[in-house]
Amino acid sequence: MLQDDGGGSAFAPLVVLELAPDTKEEAVAWLLSRIRDPQHSGGAELLVRQLGPGVEAGEKTNPNVFLVGASRRRLLSGAEDLGLFKEYSDGSMRGFTCANKLNFQGFTGDGDDFLSVAECQYIVKHELDTLRAKEETHVPGHSQAKLYPGKSIVRRLQSKGILVQMFPLHEKEELKRLSFSWYKKVKLAFQPLDDIRHYYGEGLGLYFGFLEYFTLALVPMALVGLPYYLFDWEDYDKYVVFAAFNLVWCTIILELWKQFSASLAFRWGTLSRKRAFEEPRPGFHGVLGFNPVTGREEPVYPAAKRHVRIYLVSVPFVLLCLYLSLHVMMIYFQMEGWALTLHDQDPTFWTGVLVFVPSVIYAVVIEIMNLIYRYAAEFLTEWENHRLESSYQNHLVLKVLVFNFFNCFASLFYIAFVMQDMVLLRQSLATLLITSQILNQVMEAFLPYWLQRRRNKKMIRRVQKRRTLGEQELPLEEQVRLEADMSTYLGTFDDYLELFLLFGYVSLFSCVYPLAAVLVVLNNVTEVYSDAFKMCHVFKRPFSDPAANIGVWQLAFEAMSVIAVVTNCALIGMSPQVKAYFPESDTQLILWTVAIEHFLLAVKFILTFLIPDVPKHIRIKLARLEFESLEALKRKVRADSSSPRRTNGAASANSTATAPLCTARLSASPELLMPPCQELVAPFQEAEFE
Amino acid sequence: MLQDDGGGSAFAPLVVLELAPDTKEEAVAWLLSRIRDPQHSGGAELLVRQLGPGVEAGEKTNPNVFLVGASRRRLLSGAEDLGLFKEYSDGSMRGFTCANKLNFQGFTGDGDDFLSVAECQYIVKHELDTLRAKEETHVPGHSQAKLYPGKSIVRRLQSKGILVQMFPLHEKEELKRLSFSWYKKVKLAFQPLDDIRHYYGEGLGLYFGFLEYFTLALVPMALVGLPYYLFDWEDYDKYVVFAAFNLVWCTIILELWKQFSASLAFRWGTLSRKRAFEEPRPGFHGVLGFNPVTGREEPVYPAAKRHVRIYLVSVPFVLLCLYLSLHVMMIYFQMEGWALTLHDQDPTFWTGVLVFVPSVIYAVVIEIMNLIYRYAAEFLTEWENHRLESSYQNHLVLKVLVFNFFNCFASLFYIAFVMQDMVLLRQSLATLLITSQILNQVMEAFLPYWLQRRRNKKMIRRVQKRRTLGEQELPLEEQVRLEADMSTYLGTFDDYLELFLLFGYVSLFSCVYPLAAVLVVLNNVTEVYSDAFKMCHVFKRPFSDPAANIGVWQLAFEAMSVIAVVTNCALIGMSPQVKAYFPESDTQLILWTVAIEHFLLAVKFILTFLIPDVPKHIRIKLARLEFESLEALKRKVRADSSSPRRTNGAASANSTATAPLCTARLSASPELLMPPCQELVAPFQEAEFE
Repeated sequence: MLQDDGGGSAFAPLVVLELAPDTKEEAVAWLLSRIRDPQHSGGAELLVRQLGPGVEAGEKTNPNVFLVGASRRRLLSGAEDLGLFKEYSDGSMRGFTCANKLNFQGFTGDGDDFLSVAECQYIVKHELDTLRAKEETHVPGHSQAKLYPGKSIVRRLQSKGILVQMFPLHEKEELKRLSFSWYKKVKLAFQPLDDIRHYYGEGLGLYFGFLEYFTLALVPMALVGLPYYLFDWEDYDKYVVFAAFNLVWCTIILELWKQFSASLAFRWGTLSRKRAFEEPRPGFHGVLGFNPVTGREEPVYPAAKRHVRIYLVSVPFVLLCLYLSLHVMMIYFQMEGWALTLHDQDPTFWTGVLVFVPSVIYAVVIEIMNLIYRYAAEFLTEWENHRLESSYQNHLVLKVLVFNFFNCFASLFYIAFVMQDMVLLRQSLATLLITSQILNQVMEAFLPYWLQRRRNKKMIRRVQKRRTLGEQELPLEEQVRLEADMSTYLGTFDDYLELFLLFGYVSLFSCVYPLAAVLVVLNNVTEVYSDAFKMCHVFKRPFSDPAANIGVWQLAFEAMSVIAVVTNCALIGMSPQVKAYFPESDTQLILWTVAIEHFLLAVKFILTFLIPDVPKHIRIKLARLEFESLEALKRKVRADSSSPRRTNGAASANSTATAPLCTARLSASPELLMPPCQELVAPFQEAEFE
Repeated sequence: MLQDDGGGSAFAPLVVLELAPDTKEEAVAWLLSRIRDPQHSGGAELLVRQLGPGVEAGEKTNPNVFLVGASRRRLLSGAEDLGLFKEYSDGSMRGFTCANKLNFQGFTGDGDDFLSVAECQYIVKHELDTLRAKEETHVPGHSQAKLYPGKSIVRRLQSKGILVQMFPLHEKEELKRLSFSWYKKVKLAFQPLDDIRHYYGEGLGLYFGFLEYFTLALVPMALVGLPYYLFDWEDYDKYVVFAAFNLVWCTIILELWKQFSASLAFRWGTLSRKRAFEEPRPGFHGVLGFNPVTGREEPVYPAAKRHVRIYLVSVPFVLLCLYLSLHVMMIYFQMEGWALTLHDQDPTFWTGVLVFVPSVIYAVVIEIMNLIYRYAAEFLTEWENHRLESSYQNHLVLKVLVFNFFNCFASLFYIAFVMQDMVLLRQSLATLLITSQILNQVMEAFLPYWLQRRRNKKMIRRVQKRRTLGEQELPLEEQVRLEADMSTYLGTFDDYLELFLLFGYVSLFSCVYPLAAVLVVLNNVTEVYSDAFKMCHVFKRPFSDPAANIGVWQLAFEAMSVIAVVTNCALIGMSPQVKAYFPESDTQLILWTVAIEHFLLAVKFILTFLIPDVPKHIRIKLARLEFESLEALKRKVRADSSSPRRTNGAASANSTATAPLCTARLSASPELLMPPCQELVAPFQEAEFE
């Protein structure tokens, strides 16, 4: 009965809904009916069916697992609803509309395979998220789960723990293909970014794009840095050269990345994609009130209260943590000193090893502290009760960034500028860098994989007990339950954070340890593989998110590169060789250092200003799209003004009705993207338009 | 015959076209016919009539003066064509469309007085500018004035000197009213910004808004600075306090100005106004080619050539000028020294006066050099042959800014940091400031006014010879010719530049001369009056330009405030009192100064980041408009998807036809403005939305 719903498509499971085992019958029935109801009666008009118990049926298996799919027609209308961008017949990316679907490339027949599975899953997720309560005051059978008209049902179920999880299904076949072209190839090659985006969505596509770009961008620095290590050049004028190169290079690569990411986003159609109005995040709570923007009834929470929590609790807490990490750092230095004295008293092989022990321990402790702090930060930010997911993310990122930066680099700053011991600096930089790299790789990929694998094996064995499998292909039921047990990918946050810290190790003290770049490059190469691997084998498939850029991380990296200018100038200023040029007075030396540093900073900002954020050919494409629409407008107006009848009551009424519609309908089309791009385009690039 | 053209409006002259006296008959006839032709045959569909010879008819009066008007219907369709923003019935500003004109506020009957005269004039100008050649290869009778399909006729006529000038007419009555409410009132009051915008357009409205804001913003600094002068406090810790206050203050006022200007622009509907595609500027020349954006045939000029001209000619020239001004500065210091020695040998009253003479002379010379350089810069930038007016403006502003900054402040920097003579610094700062203020006021308002007045008197007398006038009201003919003789207002450039330099005097050395703020406030108060006065009585009425912000000047002012941080920190670091705190070594002192300076800079950037550029209530309004359109979209999609018939060939065809139209038609409506505003809204403000 579900198959022949007019769409004429067989049921293909896209998304899995897992409800708590103790969910009341009526709640389940109500949810399913709401999901199945046609849209005009406020439903999501999707297909749902319960997952069979599978072979390992027992009281401990959760019966409330549901597979959600959708008819092809529904998916297409959903795509229009989302303003999804697809390639138009003229090669440009445009917001998909059912009305002129035939003008989109790859749309044949009823449009099978027009939408990628990831897109379908994203659409289904969106439809589920925007499934709103009507008159219900609470979830049937769960009186504690309050509802009010317009409240997103799924979010309420999530926040009340009735909906355990909602995740999209992997596609075994495509995953095999992807993983092969991604990291199983022996020969070194670029990552298949388009395939990654096709399977995981733009957000992850951009992350792996950035990882690859970052790695390649570091290669020149690594090459320049290598000889310093090989011939261990000690004279500082060489280091000055390296540092100068390093600073300019950091600025340039960050600017060019903007261009690269813009062209990726343009190709994937997210550059022009307009972000929909943001709903309150699931955890958000407050007294019922009216949203000034939507006019809908929804919980409101006074910003003042939030600010009190932020400034009177969060900020002091963060400062306390910083103080603690400072304290730990001091302990480390004591251990260090103790080990050194021991080594100096009777230098044996073991004491020689012992010298490195404190650094290693410290590195491990740092990682642990970061981990603990991370949970605290999440708890605090949750408690600050932000209304929007985006602002929650921003505050979390800020908290974590500040602490991680301090925690990882404080000791190095101390060694560099207080102890002024370059040898020790180099040594502990190396230790920190290498240890944290190894820890990361193990923690983030191999450990989870190992656990996952054991679970996997067990499941297969259990299944094999009952029936024989063709080359270990699991039946749907087991496959679903297996993925349900996989750990969830918590977004690109940690991956970006890791890159951010690595960037710090490379840029902050580059002029004392040129080898850092080499180490980071090596790390990133393995990172690509381990990340790819964990995405394919360790984690549930994440929902794709249509990101247009790497967001706040761009800012973070730029901030780091600014700090790097300061630190490097200071390091060089402190170097004996440079001091030698100013024998008479330190004053001269310092003044010169400061002058040069200011000059470099100025150059940085001018470069940032001069290098356009959006490459010329894309600016031209966007301009052309806009121009076409303006021309169309002119023709239209001519037509209007030459027919005065057009301006009668009825016409005006109808046109007032349609006007906002067509805006909205096309609000995702590239034409409307000019404003932000003009924002992006610094005044001086406009000259480049011809 | 022109009156009853369907619009049913009597001919009201809006814009004056003055052609060269030696223009060929056929050229005139052709131009007029092109202007009168209906739009569907490629004309502008405007009303034109020749200006009568007037009383002083003689061979020396130019017969080729034409008055351009338009029917009401034409103006309305032009307003839609431009996407002009008017207040909608719900109080929001929306792009005007004839179709639902009745939903706009103040639209009664046929919509007389719906558009302000300034708007009508702007529309007429736009229609004239976009009047394009069809098959003509050149202007009839002027074979040197080449044309090609799609080339703007008016621009070609201008660049060939056939069209001498095109300007909008003043409205005596309204001008009287405006000037009264503006500067004739005795009591001090805010300027009537809305009236100014109504008469002169948004660009000037914003300038006077900025002038007023800037003045008020300086009042606190003036108040704080006054006691330093009165009780002449000499101890530097007080100066430190003042400088610190000053730095924070500068940052805050610049940030808040963004908010103020955004709310002005929002109220005037230019914040959401989308800039139309920019045409090549009149002077632009090149070989015929195809524009990559429009695909139209138009002159193209390789960017490479332009860059060669910029970097190999303009930049060296600017550097040369800077060197020259440095040279002049040195001469000034020699004169200064000579005068001082003279004064020291036998100090009389006259030698005491003599001491100030060099500074005065230098100030005058600076003004003159700026003036000369200004012409050179305009010539060079013209020669660089920029395609867009905007990029021409940007390059011109940059050139002029750099030189003026250097020229005005070089001597002060020299005194402050090379001679380290604070007394001399204070003295010459005062002299420069006061002299340049006086010069400006005289040059820019009173001198022109005096000339203008003489011309005016003469004209009236001449007229009175022939007939008697009711209270000196001139007949149209004379009025037009009189305005034609008025000098042309060259835009807000010089006015902003003046404010920029004043801002420099206030902020750069604030901690040695707190009185500067007082002087600048006084200057600005008179400035308001003299500027208002010159706009009303000295200059032709300028065409209104729909500006949304003060553009590149915001950047310039922020750059200045950054430089101010550096200079002030340095000045304080150099002060003997501060030096006294670090008796043992200068090193400590310098390091502390640098540290504090870096800290202040960091605070500046964080403040810039934290203070939202668009005030909360406007962000909410914009968000609401966007939200409404998105909701409308959802309803629409539902409607579509519930009627599958919608997706047949015909429907899709028609919808592909209309889709771009409605986008374009509404491309100027606030909904589409979210992207740039989201650009403007820093991540952390998104939290503020609820």
